[in-house]
Amino acid sequence: MNLKKYVATIEDYPKKGIIFRDITPLMGDGEAYRYSVDQITEFAKNKGATVIVGPEARGFIFGCPVATNLHIGFAPIRKPGKLPRKTLDEAYDLEYGSNTLCIHEDALKPGDQVVIIDDLLATGGTVKATIKLCERLGAKVVGIACLIELVDLKGRQLLEGYDVLSLMEYEGE
Amino acid sequence: MNLKKYVATIEDYPKKGIIFRDITPLMGDGEAYRYSVDQITEFAKNKGATVIVGPEARGFIFGCPVATNLHIGFAPIRKPGKLPRKTLDEAYDLEYGSNTLCIHEDALKPGDQVVIIDDLLATGGTVKATIKLCERLGAKVVGIACLIELVDLKGRQLLEGYDVLSLMEYEGE
Repeated sequence: MNLKKYVATIEDYPKKGIIFRDITPLMGDGEAYRYSVDQITEFAKNKGATVIVGPEARGFIFGCPVATNLHIGFAPIRKPGKLPRKTLDEAYDLEYGSNTLCIHEDALKPGDQVVIIDDLLATGGTVKATIKLCERLGAKVVGIACLIELVDLKGRQLLEGYDVLSLMEYEGE
Repeated sequence: MNLKKYVATIEDYPKKGIIFRDITPLMGDGEAYRYSVDQITEFAKNKGATVIVGPEARGFIFGCPVATNLHIGFAPIRKPGKLPRKTLDEAYDLEYGSNTLCIHEDALKPGDQVVIIDDLLATGGTVKATIKLCERLGAKVVGIACLIELVDLKGRQLLEGYDVLSLMEYEGE
Protein backbone atom coordinates (compact mmCIF):
# COMPACT_ATOMS: atom_id res chain seq x y z
CA MET A 1 0.00 0.00 0.00
CA ASN A 2 1.30 3.47 -0.90
CA LEU A 3 0.92 5.18 2.46
CA LYS A 4 2.36 8.50 1.30
CA LYS A 5 -0.80 9.37 -0.54
CA TYR A 6 -2.53 9.56 2.86
CA VAL A 7 -0.05 12.08 4.28
CA ALA A 8 -0.81 15.79 3.87
CA THR A 9 2.11 18.17 3.45
CA ILE A 10 1.80 21.53 5.23
CA GLU A 11 4.46 24.13 4.51
CA ASP A 12 5.65 26.57 7.20
CA TYR A 13 3.94 24.71 10.07
CA PRO A 14 4.30 25.03 13.02
CA LYS A 15 6.75 27.76 11.95
CA LYS A 16 8.34 29.18 8.81
CA GLY A 17 10.70 26.84 6.99
CA ILE A 18 9.27 23.64 8.50
CA ILE A 19 7.46 21.17 6.25
CA PHE A 20 4.95 19.37 8.44
CA ARG A 21 3.79 15.84 7.55
CA ASP A 22 0.19 15.52 8.67
CA ILE A 23 -0.94 11.95 9.26
CA THR A 24 -4.58 12.70 10.07
CA PRO A 25 -5.76 11.72 6.55
CA LEU A 26 -4.06 8.33 7.04
CA MET A 27 -5.78 7.86 10.41
CA GLY A 28 -9.04 8.87 8.75
CA ASP A 29 -8.80 6.03 6.23
CA GLY A 30 -9.74 2.76 7.94
CA GLU A 31 -7.72 0.55 5.63
CA ALA A 32 -4.56 2.69 5.54
CA TYR A 33 -4.62 3.13 9.32
CA ARG A 34 -5.14 -0.58 9.92
CA TYR A 35 -2.44 -1.51 7.41
CA SER A 36 0.09 0.78 9.16
CA VAL A 37 -0.76 -0.63 12.57
CA ASP A 38 -0.51 -4.19 11.25
CA GLN A 39 3.00 -3.54 9.88
CA ILE A 40 4.18 -2.20 13.22
CA THR A 41 2.41 -5.01 15.11
CA GLU A 42 4.32 -7.58 13.07
CA PHE A 43 7.62 -5.81 13.79
CA ALA A 44 6.91 -5.60 17.54
CA LYS A 45 5.89 -9.24 17.64
CA ASN A 46 9.07 -10.33 15.84
CA LYS A 47 11.20 -8.31 18.26
CA GLY A 48 9.60 -10.09 21.21
CA ALA A 49 8.01 -7.00 22.73
CA THR A 50 6.45 -7.53 26.16
CA VAL A 51 5.36 -3.90 26.48
CA ILE A 52 4.86 -0.93 24.13
CA VAL A 53 6.02 2.56 25.09
CA GLY A 54 4.85 5.68 23.27
CA PRO A 55 5.20 9.45 23.76
CA GLU A 56 2.05 11.55 23.84
CA ALA A 57 -0.01 12.35 21.97
CA ARG A 58 0.74 10.96 18.51
CA GLY A 59 2.73 8.01 19.86
CA PHE A 60 -0.56 6.78 21.32
CA ILE A 61 -2.17 6.68 17.88
CA PHE A 62 -0.01 3.80 16.69
CA GLY A 63 1.35 2.41 19.95
CA CYS A 64 -2.01 1.71 21.62
CA PRO A 65 -3.47 -0.44 18.80
CA VAL A 66 -0.20 -2.39 18.55
CA ALA A 67 -0.30 -3.12 22.31
CA THR A 68 -3.91 -4.34 22.23
CA ASN A 69 -3.23 -6.39 19.08
CA LEU A 70 -0.47 -8.22 20.95
CA HIS A 71 -2.36 -8.43 24.29
CA ILE A 72 0.47 -6.56 26.00
CA GLY A 73 0.58 -3.40 28.08
CA PHE A 74 1.17 0.18 26.96
CA ALA A 75 3.23 2.64 29.02
CA PRO A 76 2.60 6.29 28.16
CA ILE A 77 5.37 8.87 28.04
CA ARG A 78 3.90 12.26 28.93
CA LYS A 79 4.81 15.87 29.42
CA PRO A 80 5.34 17.20 32.97
CA GLY A 81 2.23 17.40 35.16
CA LYS A 82 0.20 14.82 33.22
CA LEU A 83 1.07 11.64 35.14
CA PRO A 84 -0.39 11.59 38.66
CA ARG A 85 2.11 9.31 40.41
CA LYS A 86 5.89 9.41 40.90
CA THR A 87 7.80 9.82 37.64
CA LEU A 88 11.28 9.70 36.13
CA ASP A 89 11.98 12.71 33.91
CA GLU A 90 14.29 13.39 30.93
CA ALA A 91 14.87 16.72 29.18
CA TYR A 92 15.06 16.47 25.38
CA ASP A 93 15.42 18.57 22.23
CA LEU A 94 12.77 18.60 19.53
CA GLU A 95 13.15 19.50 15.87
CA TYR A 96 11.77 22.88 16.95
CA GLY A 97 12.03 23.77 20.66
CA SER A 98 12.71 21.64 23.72
CA ASN A 99 10.74 19.79 26.37
CA THR A 100 10.79 17.25 29.19
CA LEU A 101 9.37 13.72 29.08
CA CYS A 102 8.11 11.71 32.03
CA ILE A 103 7.25 8.07 32.76
CA HIS A 104 5.69 6.54 35.86
CA GLU A 105 8.38 4.88 37.96
CA ASP A 106 6.41 1.64 38.08
CA ALA A 107 5.54 1.60 34.35
CA LEU A 108 8.42 -0.74 33.48
CA LYS A 109 10.60 -3.23 35.31
CA PRO A 110 13.83 -5.16 34.68
CA GLY A 111 13.19 -7.96 32.16
CA ASP A 112 10.64 -5.96 30.17
CA GLN A 113 11.30 -5.91 26.42
CA VAL A 114 10.16 -2.57 25.04
CA VAL A 115 9.25 -1.50 21.55
CA ILE A 116 8.98 2.30 21.36
CA ILE A 117 6.40 3.61 18.88
CA ASP A 118 5.95 7.17 17.66
CA ASP A 119 4.53 8.77 14.55
CA LEU A 120 7.64 10.62 13.42
CA LEU A 121 11.42 10.14 13.57
CA ALA A 122 13.07 13.52 12.96
CA THR A 123 16.27 14.37 14.90
CA GLY A 124 15.58 11.44 17.20
CA GLY A 125 15.60 13.55 20.36
CA THR A 126 12.18 12.43 21.58
CA VAL A 127 12.94 8.76 20.98
CA LYS A 128 16.40 9.04 22.58
CA ALA A 129 14.92 10.55 25.75
CA THR A 130 12.30 7.78 25.75
CA ILE A 131 15.03 5.13 25.46
CA LYS A 132 16.83 6.67 28.44
CA LEU A 133 13.67 6.58 30.55
CA CYS A 134 13.08 2.90 29.66
CA GLU A 135 16.67 1.93 30.41
CA ARG A 136 16.76 3.87 33.68
CA LEU A 137 13.86 1.63 34.77
CA GLY A 138 15.89 -1.46 33.86
CA ALA A 139 13.93 -2.41 30.75
CA LYS A 140 15.54 -3.42 27.45
CA VAL A 141 14.61 -1.51 24.28
CA VAL A 142 14.35 -4.20 21.59
CA GLY A 143 13.04 -2.01 18.78
CA ILE A 144 11.78 1.38 17.66
CA ALA A 145 9.01 1.89 15.12
CA CYS A 146 7.72 5.05 13.52
CA LEU A 147 5.39 5.86 10.70
CA ILE A 148 7.52 8.56 9.07
CA GLU A 149 11.28 9.09 9.00
CA LEU A 150 12.73 12.45 7.93
CA VAL A 151 15.98 10.93 6.65
CA ASP A 152 18.00 14.16 6.33
CA LEU A 153 17.64 14.89 10.05
CA LYS A 154 19.70 11.76 10.78
CA GLY A 155 17.66 10.48 13.72
CA ARG A 156 18.90 6.98 12.95
CA GLN A 157 22.48 8.02 13.76
CA LEU A 158 21.42 9.15 17.22
CA LEU A 159 19.74 5.75 17.68
CA GLU A 160 22.73 3.67 16.55
CA GLY A 161 22.67 0.17 17.99
CA TYR A 162 18.87 0.01 18.03
CA ASP A 163 16.69 -1.66 15.40
CA VAL A 164 14.53 1.03 13.78
CA LEU A 165 11.51 0.47 11.52
CA SER A 166 9.98 3.33 9.55
CA LEU A 167 7.06 2.83 7.18
CA MET A 168 7.73 5.97 5.09
CA GLU A 169 10.89 7.93 4.37
CA TYR A 170 11.06 11.57 3.29
CA GLU A 171 14.31 13.19 2.21
CA GLY A 172 15.77 16.18 0.41
CA GLU A 173 14.19 18.99 2.37
CA MET B 1 -13.25 -8.96 34.62
CA ASN B 2 -13.08 -6.61 37.62
CA LEU B 3 -11.51 -3.61 35.94
CA LYS B 4 -11.55 -1.43 39.04
CA LYS B 5 -8.62 -3.28 40.54
CA TYR B 6 -6.49 -1.85 37.71
CA VAL B 7 -7.44 1.77 38.48
CA ALA B 8 -5.23 3.71 40.91
CA THR B 9 -6.89 6.33 43.11
CA ILE B 10 -4.92 9.52 43.68
CA GLU B 11 -6.29 12.00 46.19
CA ASP B 12 -5.92 15.76 45.72
CA TYR B 13 -4.75 15.51 42.08
CA PRO B 14 -4.50 17.63 40.02
CA LYS B 15 -5.68 19.88 42.85
CA LYS B 16 -6.94 19.65 46.43
CA GLY B 17 -10.31 17.98 46.81
CA ILE B 18 -10.19 16.10 43.51
CA ILE B 19 -9.98 12.31 43.51
CA PHE B 20 -8.17 11.31 40.32
CA ARG B 21 -8.77 7.91 38.75
CA ASP B 22 -5.52 6.82 37.12
CA ILE B 23 -5.95 4.26 34.35
CA THR B 24 -2.24 3.73 33.62
CA PRO B 25 -2.15 0.45 35.62
CA LEU B 26 -5.02 -0.84 33.46
CA MET B 27 -3.17 0.13 30.28
CA GLY B 28 -0.08 -1.57 31.67
CA ASP B 29 -1.89 -4.90 32.00
CA GLY B 30 -2.18 -6.49 28.56
CA GLU B 31 -5.28 -8.53 29.36
CA ALA B 32 -7.20 -5.79 31.19
CA TYR B 33 -6.38 -3.26 28.47
CA ARG B 34 -7.41 -5.63 25.70
CA TYR B 35 -10.59 -6.62 27.53
CA SER B 36 -11.61 -2.96 27.91
CA VAL B 37 -10.94 -2.22 24.25
CA ASP B 38 -12.87 -5.33 23.21
CA GLN B 39 -15.94 -4.23 25.20
CA ILE B 40 -15.92 -0.80 23.54
CA THR B 41 -15.24 -2.33 20.12
CA GLU B 42 -18.36 -4.49 20.47
CA PHE B 43 -20.44 -1.45 21.44
CA ALA B 44 -19.14 0.64 18.52
CA LYS B 45 -19.77 -2.23 16.10
CA ASN B 46 -23.33 -2.68 17.34
CA LYS B 47 -23.99 1.04 16.99
CA GLY B 48 -22.89 0.91 13.34
CA ALA B 49 -19.92 3.25 13.75
CA THR B 50 -18.24 4.28 10.51
CA VAL B 51 -15.67 6.48 12.27
CA ILE B 52 -14.32 6.88 15.81
CA VAL B 53 -13.73 10.31 17.32
CA GLY B 54 -11.63 10.85 20.45
CA PRO B 55 -10.29 13.85 22.36
CA GLU B 56 -6.56 14.00 23.09
CA ALA B 57 -4.68 12.51 24.72
CA ARG B 58 -6.45 9.83 26.73
CA GLY B 59 -9.27 9.48 24.20
CA PHE B 60 -6.63 8.13 21.82
CA ILE B 61 -5.76 5.32 24.23
CA PHE B 62 -9.10 3.57 23.78
CA GLY B 63 -10.40 5.15 20.57
CA CYS B 64 -7.47 4.25 18.34
CA PRO B 65 -7.49 0.49 19.06
CA VAL B 66 -11.27 0.40 18.57
CA ALA B 67 -10.92 2.10 15.17
CA THR B 68 -8.24 -0.30 13.96
CA ASN B 69 -10.19 -3.29 15.31
CA LEU B 70 -13.15 -2.24 13.16
CA HIS B 71 -11.06 -1.20 10.11
CA ILE B 72 -12.53 2.31 10.32
CA GLY B 73 -10.95 5.75 10.58
CA PHE B 74 -10.14 7.75 13.69
CA ALA B 75 -10.62 11.53 13.84
CA PRO B 76 -8.63 13.24 16.62
CA ILE B 77 -10.03 16.10 18.67
CA ARG B 78 -7.14 18.29 19.78
CA LYS B 79 -6.34 21.44 21.69
CA PRO B 80 -5.73 24.67 19.77
CA GLY B 81 -2.54 24.81 17.71
CA LYS B 82 -2.11 21.06 17.37
CA LEU B 83 -3.94 20.40 14.10
CA PRO B 84 -2.12 21.86 11.08
CA ARG B 85 -5.05 22.41 8.71
CA LYS B 86 -8.29 24.38 8.95
CA THR B 87 -10.33 23.53 12.05
CA LEU B 88 -13.71 23.99 13.70
CA ASP B 89 -13.40 25.02 17.36
CA GLU B 90 -15.64 24.69 20.45
CA ALA B 91 -15.00 26.13 23.90
CA TYR B 92 -15.88 23.80 26.77
CA ASP B 93 -15.79 23.51 30.56
CA LEU B 94 -13.83 20.79 32.31
CA GLU B 95 -14.34 19.36 35.78
CA TYR B 96 -11.52 21.74 36.75
CA GLY B 97 -10.83 24.69 34.42
CA SER B 98 -11.84 25.33 30.81
CA ASN B 99 -10.45 24.82 27.34
CA THR B 100 -11.13 24.78 23.60
CA LEU B 101 -11.37 21.70 21.37
CA CYS B 102 -10.67 21.57 17.64
CA ILE B 103 -11.32 19.18 14.77
CA HIS B 104 -10.12 19.33 11.18
CA GLU B 105 -12.91 20.60 8.94
CA ASP B 106 -12.50 17.62 6.61
CA ALA B 107 -12.31 15.00 9.38
CA LEU B 108 -16.02 14.11 9.11
CA LYS B 109 -18.74 14.44 6.50
CA PRO B 110 -22.53 14.11 6.33
CA GLY B 111 -23.53 10.45 6.57
CA ASP B 112 -20.70 9.52 8.94
CA GLN B 113 -21.84 7.60 12.01
CA VAL B 114 -19.62 8.56 14.92
CA VAL B 115 -18.87 6.80 18.17
CA ILE B 116 -17.05 9.17 20.55
CA ILE B 117 -14.58 7.48 22.89
CA ASP B 118 -12.85 8.97 25.93
CA ASP B 119 -11.37 7.59 29.12
CA LEU B 120 -13.54 9.50 31.58
CA LEU B 121 -17.07 10.87 31.74
CA ALA B 122 -17.22 13.50 34.49
CA THR B 123 -19.42 16.59 33.96
CA GLY B 124 -19.71 15.68 30.28
CA GLY B 125 -18.34 19.01 29.05
CA THR B 126 -15.58 17.54 26.91
CA VAL B 127 -17.92 15.01 25.30
CA LYS B 128 -20.63 17.62 24.74
CA ALA B 129 -18.18 19.91 22.92
CA THR B 130 -17.02 16.93 20.87
CA ILE B 131 -20.63 16.10 19.92
CA LYS B 132 -21.13 19.69 18.77
CA LEU B 133 -18.03 19.55 16.57
CA CYS B 134 -19.20 16.28 14.99
CA GLU B 135 -22.70 17.57 14.36
CA ARG B 136 -21.46 20.90 12.97
CA LEU B 137 -19.66 18.80 10.33
CA GLY B 138 -22.92 17.02 9.49
CA ALA B 139 -22.04 13.68 11.09
CA LYS B 140 -24.40 11.70 13.32
CA VAL B 141 -23.26 10.71 16.82
CA VAL B 142 -24.57 7.16 17.29
CA GLY B 143 -22.88 6.41 20.62
CA ILE B 144 -20.49 7.51 23.33
CA ALA B 145 -18.19 5.17 25.23
CA CYS B 146 -15.94 5.81 28.18
CA LEU B 147 -13.96 3.67 30.52
CA ILE B 148 -14.96 5.44 33.73
CA GLU B 149 -18.09 7.36 34.69
CA LEU B 150 -18.15 9.62 37.76
CA VAL B 151 -21.86 9.21 38.35
CA ASP B 152 -22.36 12.05 40.84
CA LEU B 153 -21.17 14.63 38.30
CA LYS B 154 -24.23 13.81 36.15
CA GLY B 155 -22.50 13.82 32.77
CA ARG B 156 -25.21 11.51 31.46
CA GLN B 157 -27.84 14.23 32.00
CA LEU B 158 -25.89 16.61 29.79
CA LEU B 159 -25.75 13.86 27.14
CA GLU B 160 -29.47 13.04 27.23
CA GLY B 161 -30.69 11.52 23.99
CA TYR B 162 -27.36 9.81 23.30
CA ASP B 163 -26.52 6.19 24.03
CA VAL B 164 -23.69 6.13 26.60
CA LEU B 165 -21.59 3.11 27.58
CA SER B 166 -19.31 3.23 30.61
CA LEU B 167 -17.27 0.23 31.74
CA MET B 168 -16.86 1.39 35.35
CA GLU B 169 -18.95 3.65 37.58
CA TYR B 170 -17.72 5.53 40.62
CA GLU B 171 -20.08 7.38 42.95
CA GLY B 172 -20.38 8.98 46.35
CA GLU B 173 -17.46 11.36 46.25
